[in-house]
Amino acid sequence: MTDIRYDVLGIGNAIVDIIGRCDDAFLATHGAPKGHMRLVDEQTISTLYSGMGPGIEISGGSAANTMVGISSLGGRSAFIGKVADDEFGRIFSHDIRAANVAFATTPTVGKLPTSRSLILVTPDGERTMNTFLGVSTDLDQGEIDADLIRASAIIYLEGYLFDRPDAKAAFREAMRIAKSAGRKVALTLSDSFCVDRHRAEFLALINDGVDILFANESEITALYETNDFETAAGHVARDARLAALTRSAKGSVILGSGERHEIPIEPVSELVDSTGAGDLYAAGFLYGIATGHDLSTSGHLGSMAAAEIISHVGARPAVPLAELAKLRGLTS
Amino acid sequence: MTDIRYDVLGIGNAIVDIIGRCDDAFLATHGAPKGHMRLVDEQTISTLYSGMGPGIEISGGSAANTMVGISSLGGRSAFIGKVADDEFGRIFSHDIRAANVAFATTPTVGKLPTSRSLILVTPDGERTMNTFLGVSTDLDQGEIDADLIRASAIIYLEGYLFDRPDAKAAFREAMRIAKSAGRKVALTLSDSFCVDRHRAEFLALINDGVDILFANESEITALYETNDFETAAGHVARDARLAALTRSAKGSVILGSGERHEIPIEPVSELVDSTGAGDLYAAGFLYGIATGHDLSTSGHLGSMAAAEIISHVGARPAVPLAELAKLRGLTS
Repeated sequence: MTDIRYDVLGIGNAIVDIIGRCDDAFLATHGAPKGHMRLVDEQTISTLYSGMGPGIEISGGSAANTMVGISSLGGRSAFIGKVADDEFGRIFSHDIRAANVAFATTPTVGKLPTSRSLILVTPDGERTMNTFLGVSTDLDQGEIDADLIRASAIIYLEGYLFDRPDAKAAFREAMRIAKSAGRKVALTLSDSFCVDRHRAEFLALINDGVDILFANESEITALYETNDFETAAGHVARDARLAALTRSAKGSVILGSGERHEIPIEPVSELVDSTGAGDLYAAGFLYGIATGHDLSTSGHLGSMAAAEIISHVGARPAVPLAELAKLRGLTS
Repeated sequence: MTDIRYDVLGIGNAIVDIIGRCDDAFLATHGAPKGHMRLVDEQTISTLYSGMGPGIEISGGSAANTMVGISSLGGRSAFIGKVADDEFGRIFSHDIRAANVAFATTPTVGKLPTSRSLILVTPDGERTMNTFLGVSTDLDQGEIDADLIRASAIIYLEGYLFDRPDAKAAFREAMRIAKSAGRKVALTLSDSFCVDRHRAEFLALINDGVDILFANESEITALYETNDFETAAGHVARDARLAALTRSAKGSVILGSGERHEIPIEPVSELVDSTGAGDLYAAGFLYGIATGHDLSTSGHLGSMAAAEIISHVGARPAVPLAELAKLRGLTS
């Protein structure tokens, strides 16, 4: 029996974000679907980069952002994801370790570069992501550290991993190890286009082994092929053990153990950049659950962390979230 | 006779900033002089990076920041500085071109990496810089494009260049070309430690050929080896044709043509990161002078640009400065 050393272990793509501003016309010209993530090849990311304005480089990656958020809240988190032995790989590795997240995946030498995502922020604060996966596609079962999984109360998997057959196998292997050790498995659906690509498999996972499901409104309605949020919520209440559904300005809905909680957003004075809103909501919620808080408090921790992240550029917290949570009386 | 195509041409180190937060104790432990720039070797920057918190990467470099500021104000600017053929070099080149600054210096292949500066921001918003020059030391006279100099109304040189003998030669060559073409030469003293290293040469330049001098209070008092600002101001009023002296919260003093103008700072709601305050003051002032504004208006443009830059992380403007200047009635 392995002792639990981490509250949450995240498995996902190790990405450095390049964040720049653009107008809606730039998105249209380059066929980038506003508010979504699309996978692009090296040539496309290079063309987009040439055309966009000045950028800021900051570590990202959906599950990685969530693990940094959990650490910022005072939780113990770890991350598995693949970087290359290059400048962006060193940036990613430094930043996640400097945020007190355990990260020990070996960099790959001399192959594809570290994954990067061009994040285009429009004047309304919405972000549109263009991700070149690079070396992230190298994550395979060999990277999945069984001891680390058994040492983590919850493992958290990003749906984006399903876009790569080898990572999908790693994903399933991680779930199997976690389940057999009595650990919980959390999943985020990541993006509605990602859901369209892998609907049947996601549904099977949710019915089978997922303990905590995260999705936003467009993802959950895509999953159940409906335009109506309440219809989708009705389905997920039957299929999932526990689900946290985010609805942008409408807040979030938590469904589990026959309960339904509606959690408002935490207002912000200015929406600067929505990058990471979902990732940080998941951080707050998972931290709450992992540390024994009730569903409503966990949801409020999610709203709080999301509000902090959208009030500045980048998807990593600019201030210690643990202090914010104490100020609000959400933690003691 | 070459036509003037640029208002200002900057010559300086091409640097990518890695900005992170730390406390005063971290600076003390690592011997970093608070509020100053020090040159460090590759080993030292690596040690500092390992110990510091998560970072944000954003293009920087003193004269480069100034050129981006001038462009943001609507001016025509160009930049000469050396990058390597690496990821940071591509970031620097992209960002400065995306800001509409002409930049054509050829990257150096396969030698030292692109210059980077670890900028440690303390809770008071003050920044302390640790710069590894890398390939920047390769800037030599071969890089100085005589046509570009003749095509620029003002050339702007950063004092930091004096820390490298080869760059110093390039610096002098650029001055000679500018002067013989009837162009103006502007110089910033960059840092008081830099002034200590090159006092006699700076004084000779100011008496000889510099048309516009920029210095902050610690730099100008270091130059004249006095603790008293007014004493230093008295000296510089005699030695320099035109000087703009910045005094942090006390605003700036402009001395030239027998006039003295005291320009207040523009208040900010929060001092987030002082990186680039001097660079952007110079941008506003040079833009004002180059476009025929009087000394006082030029100083106010400097205060405005500095205020914008210290209200966010990084030394490149987050909003178009031309719009701010119009809103304030400084430009039409």
